[in-house]
Amino acid sequence: MSTAPKLPAGAALCEDDPGAVALIWADWQSCGDDFSELMEPERSQYKECFAVIRCRWNDQTWSRSPFIWVDKDFALARGYHQGYPKKLGEIWMTRPVTVGRAGPRLEPGGRFGATLTVAGRRIAEMRLTLSAPAGAPGFVNAHPMLHDRFWPSIESDGTASMDELVTMRGYDAEVADVWSGEAEVEVFDSPWDELSLLAPIEVIGGYYHRVGVSWREGTTLRRI
Amino acid sequence: MSTAPKLPAGAALCEDDPGAVALIWADWQSCGDDFSELMEPERSQYKECFAVIRCRWNDQTWSRSPFIWVDKDFALARGYHQGYPKKLGEIWMTRPVTVGRAGPRLEPGGRFGATLTVAGRRIAEMRLTLSAPAGAPGFVNAHPMLHDRFWPSIESDGTASMDELVTMRGYDAEVADVWSGEAEVEVFDSPWDELSLLAPIEVIGGYYHRVGVSWREGTTLRRI
Amino acid sequence: MSTAPKLPAGAALCEDDPGAVALIWADWQSCGDDFSELMEPERSQYKECFAVIRCRWNDQTWSRSPFIWVDKDFALARGYHQGYPKKLGEIWMTRPVTVGRAGPRLEPGGRFGATLTVAGRRIAEMRLTLSAPAGAPGFVNAHPMLHDRFWPSIESDGTASMDELVTMRGYDAEVADVWSGEAEVEVFDSPWDELSLLAPIEVIGGYYHRVGVSWREGTTLRRI
Amino acid sequence: MSTAPKLPAGAALCEDDPGAVALIWADWQSCGDDFSELMEPERSQYKECFAVIRCRWNDQTWSRSPFIWVDKDFALARGYHQGYPKKLGEIWMTRPVTVGRAGPRLEPGGRFGATLTVAGRRIAEMRLTLSAPAGAPGFVNAHPMLHDRFWPSIESDGTASMDELVTMRGYDAEVADVWSGEAEVEVFDSPWDELSLLAPIEVIGGYYHRVGVSWREGTTLRRI
Repeated sequence: MSTAPKLPAGAALCEDDPGAVALIWADWQSCGDDFSELMEPERSQYKECFAVIRCRWNDQTWSRSPFIWVDKDFALARGYHQGYPKKLGEIWMTRPVTVGRAGPRLEPGGRFGATLTVAGRRIAEMRLTLSAPAGAPGFVNAHPMLHDRFWPSIESDGTASMDELVTMRGYDAEVADVWSGEAEVEVFDSPWDELSLLAPIEVIGGYYHRVGVSWREGTTLRRI
Repeated sequence: MSTAPKLPAGAALCEDDPGAVALIWADWQSCGDDFSELMEPERSQYKECFAVIRCRWNDQTWSRSPFIWVDKDFALARGYHQGYPKKLGEIWMTRPVTVGRAGPRLEPGGRFGATLTVAGRRIAEMRLTLSAPAGAPGFVNAHPMLHDRFWPSIESDGTASMDELVTMRGYDAEVADVWSGEAEVEVFDSPWDELSLLAPIEVIGGYYHRVGVSWREGTTLRRI
Repeated sequence: MSTAPKLPAGAALCEDDPGAVALIWADWQSCGDDFSELMEPERSQYKECFAVIRCRWNDQTWSRSPFIWVDKDFALARGYHQGYPKKLGEIWMTRPVTVGRAGPRLEPGGRFGATLTVAGRRIAEMRLTLSAPAGAPGFVNAHPMLHDRFWPSIESDGTASMDELVTMRGYDAEVADVWSGEAEVEVFDSPWDELSLLAPIEVIGGYYHRVGVSWREGTTLRRI
Repeated sequence: MSTAPKLPAGAALCEDDPGAVALIWADWQSCGDDFSELMEPERSQYKECFAVIRCRWNDQTWSRSPFIWVDKDFALARGYHQGYPKKLGEIWMTRPVTVGRAGPRLEPGGRFGATLTVAGRRIAEMRLTLSAPAGAPGFVNAHPMLHDRFWPSIESDGTASMDELVTMRGYDAEVADVWSGEAEVEVFDSPWDELSLLAPIEVIGGYYHRVGVSWREGTTLRRI
């Protein structure tokens, strides 16, 4: 990472490995307390691609997502509630299979591809070849999230109606099928999107895993 | 309109014609001050379908949009800034033509159709037959807008981080080609969307027009 | 099934259970001999919903698909090659999960939903509750396919440039995780699509399974 | 144009200006004899981007479209009937406006942009600045079309079930608002699409126009 996206006031990149970035593709199924969305899967399934960096603030280490794309409006609006700066994109990733030949198995040599297109331009691609089961899927996206929730006032005068620093954590997380592997990542310029600010200099590692998590609330750390 | 969507505290439907609703389909081209989006039209064009009702608040008459759908993320996020409760939908409307046979002319008898589909369900349809040029496109969407800008706090405890009542007006509006006509409107139930709260009892009128308008700012009327 | 879609000349519905229809939702990953599409999953993944009926022709029992929708162009064009009358639609189905709460497990009581929307109208919905592992996923879609490959001549004079009856079978099929269950199916009218010709009178059964299959060629049974 | 896409047997590029290519973006409204699609505009409107080259065959000059993308299935299937090798793409082009500031007028200096994205990759962009009214929109797409209608046999053995050379012309064409201007065109490589075979060496001219045309039939020139 050559240039840091804007961090909250008082925060700084971590001293160890300040340029470490996780670029994550996820294929989610999501629902509320009554599970009704699962019976109408267009309202339940969404795909996501997001970048995560780490920073220090208030003597703690945090994860933070400067760029994130999803492909459904319910995920976009929920993200605004949570503090994710979501935009819409087209997000695709290979799925593992257990029958037939049209997909990788979760086994050494299994190959996955993933792409991100925003407003008609390809801005990221990733290819992963699995090596071996692993203990954890990386170290970047493993801290409490530190998010801004920000809306300018309707006066368009430089003031804000909401300017909060929040954190949140899920609960009841379940993780399975963690694999490490060899990854290639390419990030492309766009006049509209800034993901190439995080263009890779060196690829530290690549991971596959499954995760399920519930979320209800967060904590406001600072309100301006 | 049989049931009123939620109005701001202290507001009430108008005494004359309290159930008057405008249901509007619009096909927009949009850009910022440097006009760059016009050269990348995927980022400039969007379609919209929205309902407008009128209410009285603070001794004035206001227009208010309880339901609105668009088909691009930039329009969705801008709407959240302005106070529109936008969701994504598939919005289609017939365009007038000046050559060939595959479209209506702006002339008596010209026929237009429009549809709205949300999360895979058709929720509104409209058909309009033009009668004659008109002076103004209806009386419902003709007042300053009265919008809520609301985000719950991340604590999910019933408190709000932002709860504002705002108004806004465009400037440099240009209107052309106003026609009145005969309209049929159908609104369909959905387990997820509440447009059928505004299902038509009687159709007062139908209109076609072109409009261009600029927007920069609004005014916060009340902040809680 | 109250009315039979058009069958090939000389064919008739089966005498036993002539109205049996399979309505199938499938979430595919697909590739060619060099597997390159798997690294670009937008070109590999597609979803499909199709109806299958059975018929007798030439003293044999055949499966036949009168209606089928997919959500990618490569699947549409390949379908035209194979004789499937494909159209585009929006197809969604719940996926089983192995972690978290936002999805069913492959176990008794696991609940799945599926929907089909075409040109902005919902035309089919299905809900399935798993009961028990099963030996085979139904009896309708289990025969060699009997397809028409038909293109009218460019003269638009009622003659055909291609009018073939073909059959085809895949090879190297692998089936796994077959479950039977209780299904509810609803089919809705549309002015454009004829799936409601096959509206259910009684639901015989519901199934879940995984399948992988390769395909290379078929056999022309009759050429006019 | 540096390399010629495949021409029909016996055909050759024109001797004068053999590399002349028209790259055309079009925003269509389309309907059948009963005009019903116009009331359901999702089934009526589609966008298209296509390349046209010229060739000589049988002592005549023909136009031919080697590459073409549309964004609706009805246009795709109709194209297969007519002999156009259509694929799906995302096609956008600036529309002229008559009110407001968010769009060009049909006047000198009016600026238009257009883009084509296929399978998540931008493969063409165009920018046009209008200069003056013109008599005709170019000379490449002005001849009878010479198309292949081709389907391989289901045996996948190298034989064809349909292999025709056809021509077709519309009738009742109406053209209006023809403008010439200065155009910039960029074409980008893709592993899947071959439009960059026609990458521009020099831009001869750019045009805007409106056109309406009816189509019913064509003529089979050769059947193999």
